[in-house]
Amino acid sequence: MYNKLSNAELKKELEIVRAEYAELKNKNLKLDMSRGKPSSEQLDICLGLLDEINSKTEWCGVDYRNYGINDGIKEVKQLFCELLEITPEELIVSGNASLILMYDTLQRAMQFGVLGEKPWNKVENVKWLCPVPGYDRHFAITQLFGIEMINIPMDENGPDMNLIEKLVKDECVKGIWCVPKYSNPGGIIYSEEVVRRFARLKPAAKDFRVFWDNAYMVHGLYGQEEMLDVFNEAKKYGNEDYFYIFGSTSKVTFAGAGIAFMYGSAKNMNALRKLIGIQTIGPDKIAQLAHAKFLKTKEGVLNIMEKHADILRPKFEKVLDILESSLKPAGIATWTKPTGGYFISVNVAKGTAKETVRLAKELGVIFTGAGATFPYGLDPNDENIRIAPSLPPLKELMDATSVFCTCAKLAYLEKKVGN
Amino acid sequence: MYNKLSNAELKKELEIVRAEYAELKNKNLKLDMSRGKPSSEQLDICLGLLDEINSKTEWCGVDYRNYGINDGIKEVKQLFCELLEITPEELIVSGNASLILMYDTLQRAMQFGVLGEKPWNKVENVKWLCPVPGYDRHFAITQLFGIEMINIPMDENGPDMNLIEKLVKDECVKGIWCVPKYSNPGGIIYSEEVVRRFARLKPAAKDFRVFWDNAYMVHGLYGQEEMLDVFNEAKKYGNEDYFYIFGSTSKVTFAGAGIAFMYGSAKNMNALRKLIGIQTIGPDKIAQLAHAKFLKTKEGVLNIMEKHADILRPKFEKVLDILESSLKPAGIATWTKPTGGYFISVNVAKGTAKETVRLAKELGVIFTGAGATFPYGLDPNDENIRIAPSLPPLKELMDATSVFCTCAKLAYLEKKVGN
Repeated sequence: MYNKLSNAELKKELEIVRAEYAELKNKNLKLDMSRGKPSSEQLDICLGLLDEINSKTEWCGVDYRNYGINDGIKEVKQLFCELLEITPEELIVSGNASLILMYDTLQRAMQFGVLGEKPWNKVENVKWLCPVPGYDRHFAITQLFGIEMINIPMDENGPDMNLIEKLVKDECVKGIWCVPKYSNPGGIIYSEEVVRRFARLKPAAKDFRVFWDNAYMVHGLYGQEEMLDVFNEAKKYGNEDYFYIFGSTSKVTFAGAGIAFMYGSAKNMNALRKLIGIQTIGPDKIAQLAHAKFLKTKEGVLNIMEKHADILRPKFEKVLDILESSLKPAGIATWTKPTGGYFISVNVAKGTAKETVRLAKELGVIFTGAGATFPYGLDPNDENIRIAPSLPPLKELMDATSVFCTCAKLAYLEKKVGN
Repeated sequence: MYNKLSNAELKKELEIVRAEYAELKNKNLKLDMSRGKPSSEQLDICLGLLDEINSKTEWCGVDYRNYGINDGIKEVKQLFCELLEITPEELIVSGNASLILMYDTLQRAMQFGVLGEKPWNKVENVKWLCPVPGYDRHFAITQLFGIEMINIPMDENGPDMNLIEKLVKDECVKGIWCVPKYSNPGGIIYSEEVVRRFARLKPAAKDFRVFWDNAYMVHGLYGQEEMLDVFNEAKKYGNEDYFYIFGSTSKVTFAGAGIAFMYGSAKNMNALRKLIGIQTIGPDKIAQLAHAKFLKTKEGVLNIMEKHADILRPKFEKVLDILESSLKPAGIATWTKPTGGYFISVNVAKGTAKETVRLAKELGVIFTGAGATFPYGLDPNDENIRIAPSLPPLKELMDATSVFCTCAKLAYLEKKVGN
């Protein structure tokens, strides 16, 4: 434990870590750990999807090669309705990216308002709740629209509900970003209590919307953990209109060529359908049909997710092992131990995250920028770093994690006793 | 010629046409002529596209199954750059629908402004020029955003440039919809003179933008007619920033699963790339690669377009034949004789378009709603109807066109001498 060492001992340790760092420099690494991309090995799981549609496919009934059907073909809707336990009217199936659905849904609220309420563009000071650490691409969207983002601390049960319940009493608070299962980056599953409090939320703004990004709903590493269904729960209180729920098969089939969807109350979805009908003459229905044929049922999806888990599990475990053996003894960092999702969230010593990432970059290893997990890129403690173990092969992942640990220690020691 | 007949003769003619109408009623038709959809026979032309990518495809280099590459993969950019004679920097390749590109580009101008100018949402009274008759989906977009639309008459050379040059002196006029080649619905090709005047336009608003929807750029029925390239022409005058140009393969490969693109000055495209990068992590690159492999070159595209023309040409000719033999003698209607595109624009007698469409509907034949070709659905003369010959088989098309002619005559005669 570094905090039990004397100054002289810390200086000695600094020399050791500097030597480690120099040695790593000689490895001439070139690794990118910055984004939560699946590996090629994972992408190979669903190669069969590419054989589902070919020139011999028969196009009887509605010709899916043609224009039309703005909210998804019946085959893919049937699959997702089974998976999500919702009705077709509550569901809109779209193109390849749920991020577009979130962006567009927010843009529509800004421009046209939600269910007849004043467009958010015309509201003086729109505010948004951002559980932190969170997903940088979410924050980039709300920032682009000039929405004031308010940090909401997270613990192992999810975001601080006392704070949220208090803040939603402000009519200018129009929404919140949530990644409720295997959160990005903490890998946290919102507890039943947290989900229940979301479902019963009483916001002052009628047009308050929870942007519930269920990106990792079936992405457990150790089997599928149950989680309370916020949409069904909200219905019990007549609160279903407060939820826009998003998901995709990006981390089931192909990251760049999956199928995205959103769901919510029929009232919400019908209002969006009208606007979507002006924007487009329909999504790529051939891709939708290929997915429906390949995935078939909920069971089909879960079988695929087991294969992903088999590839991801050793990677997560290896990163956690190295953190445990290298950083735990130093006592300068804490981290989450996710049972699913795509990330591990590490808190290094306060004031050393940026320096840790910079030092790693010097060694040729790119981590997600420090601060990226906070609105405006501002981590008030400069301590959080997101590790994305999915993309690199195991050997590279081990190198990168060793680099990470060395850099975290070096940043701490240089700050404490350097010069 | 009806206008040479006496009242008594017209009444006699009315009896004849009423009898024709009654006879058609007995046919119990059920035909939809409302939308410009390609036929299944046309969609079969590119079935091979569905075989280009399969589980044996090798993903070396950049793995297109994964996230990333927001403006198009290099293979598809190379193809479109050859076709459009532009550079990759001037091009953004996207998903399956150019309509989304137009909608999103307009929405971005509303929300964020164009190249640093004031967001159009903050401009008191945004106005838009709409050559008429035009494309109903264009007008639906500008209407949704509350933009004031101003009709611009068209003749066989394109829109009235004197009027346009005058109106763009108003700083509130921010844009214009154009379908420059085989216009929707007239099938008109803008003349060299018109294109040149567009290229030299001097709008008062720096953020004026021509939305140049080149939907039918290679869609000639009798070979590919040359047309002056507005983008290159505009560059001569340093006017290239005024143009957003759109296109897609929707009517080359699959209407619902083609590849859409937009292009313009690098300055314009780079500004859009920044915003697109917040909205998405990339389009479906597998679909892009399939298109690049299947279409290969400009020549590949043109070969496919010949096959489309072979299917469409007899349909257009048959409709024109029937109009000629049935309506010409009555002298109550005029129509365009397109050499490409997807539509024929008919002007029936003033004040009878709505009634013609209603009468046809009674017989089970759906035409595009009268008025749809004008902003707000308001055809000031109630005379224009769009005929879309592409979808029905020839036999049905003949029935539908006969119905059309009978209904146009009946509407005229009932109005003139009915009761």
